[in-house]
Amino acid sequence: MNFSSVLIEKGVEAFASLPGIGRKTALRLVLHLLKQDKSVTEQFGEALLKMRQNIRDCSVCHNLSDEPVCRICADQRRDRSLVCAVESIRDLMAIEDTGQYRGLYHVLGGLISPIEGVGPGDLQIDSLVERCAKGEIKEVIMAISPTIEGETTVFYMAKKLQPMGVQISNIARGVAFGGDLEYTDELTLGRSIVARVPYGER
Amino acid sequence: MNFSSVLIEKGVEAFASLPGIGRKTALRLVLHLLKQDKSVTEQFGEALLKMRQNIRDCSVCHNLSDEPVCRICADQRRDRSLVCAVESIRDLMAIEDTGQYRGLYHVLGGLISPIEGVGPGDLQIDSLVERCAKGEIKEVIMAISPTIEGETTVFYMAKKLQPMGVQISNIARGVAFGGDLEYTDELTLGRSIVARVPYGER
Repeated sequence: MNFSSVLIEKGVEAFASLPGIGRKTALRLVLHLLKQDKSVTEQFGEALLKMRQNIRDCSVCHNLSDEPVCRICADQRRDRSLVCAVESIRDLMAIEDTGQYRGLYHVLGGLISPIEGVGPGDLQIDSLVERCAKGEIKEVIMAISPTIEGETTVFYMAKKLQPMGVQISNIARGVAFGGDLEYTDELTLGRSIVARVPYGER
Repeated sequence: MNFSSVLIEKGVEAFASLPGIGRKTALRLVLHLLKQDKSVTEQFGEALLKMRQNIRDCSVCHNLSDEPVCRICADQRRDRSLVCAVESIRDLMAIEDTGQYRGLYHVLGGLISPIEGVGPGDLQIDSLVERCAKGEIKEVIMAISPTIEGETTVFYMAKKLQPMGVQISNIARGVAFGGDLEYTDELTLGRSIVARVPYGER
């Protein structure tokens, strides 16, 4: 694209540096901001700067948080004997959105991957072990993707946590609601038959 | 979506206020910025603020510009006897991208639309008449969409400019390169037959 303005070029580059935004979309966003009042761009920039500067890790579960301890960890109505270990904040949000879980979380910040050079020390595994050592936690739910890295991470954590008397569970795998049996992969379909549930049970 | 942080909520709202960006995409962008260094967000915000605060209208053609006169108007190698009238800056950019045009432009900033209450006085038509009055401009190309509003605007401008001895031309309409005759609308196809061009001519 041929810009007659260096300022527009810089603005388009800024948007286009974000994932999933190409130069055409970036230009559309830039022209949108230029059509609006100056204050709109100012508020937009300030919201992002304020967010980036003030956000921190929750000191307990490593969720993103405005305060030293996040809203979920601070909520006394939640079941404090139950912790759900997740790879990332996006997974945490997805589980929160279901509205079905009332325990706490622990965000690992990744999965063990020897190929990518990610070892247990790079993840928030020791801090989970420390949390469990305090004795309040009875069960840790592994809500981790069933990949090689995921299985490795779950295996490593289970080996550390089981000797402490903490119960380890995996989230249920099976055919998704609305899923078509014909198009379900063999592994999932096979597992859903082996782990079948009596009619009437959930 | 259930955010455990007000700051993230504000950041997501900022991105989601842009056209074509929903809350899921906004969250992806926010998490991307949070993963990067603080300086990335600072540079992003600054580029947009600087752009919004310093950009201005070119005093000649009303293109967006960094300087009082835009790069195109300031370029002495361009044909100063030829002006292309366009509705918006996006249309100007589209024509520039073809690399086929070496004249100047005039951005009208819209089209005459009695229904939406846009009259000739709301557009940069008088300033085009003033430019032509200086005598340097020989031809004005109307690169305007063939809608009712577009035709009205072209008619109005032609009536003002023709008495001044300025030649008025329309961009060619016809079947697009790569276009399928079968799926071309009747008006365009009919016009392309009436306005046929001798073989070998461009």
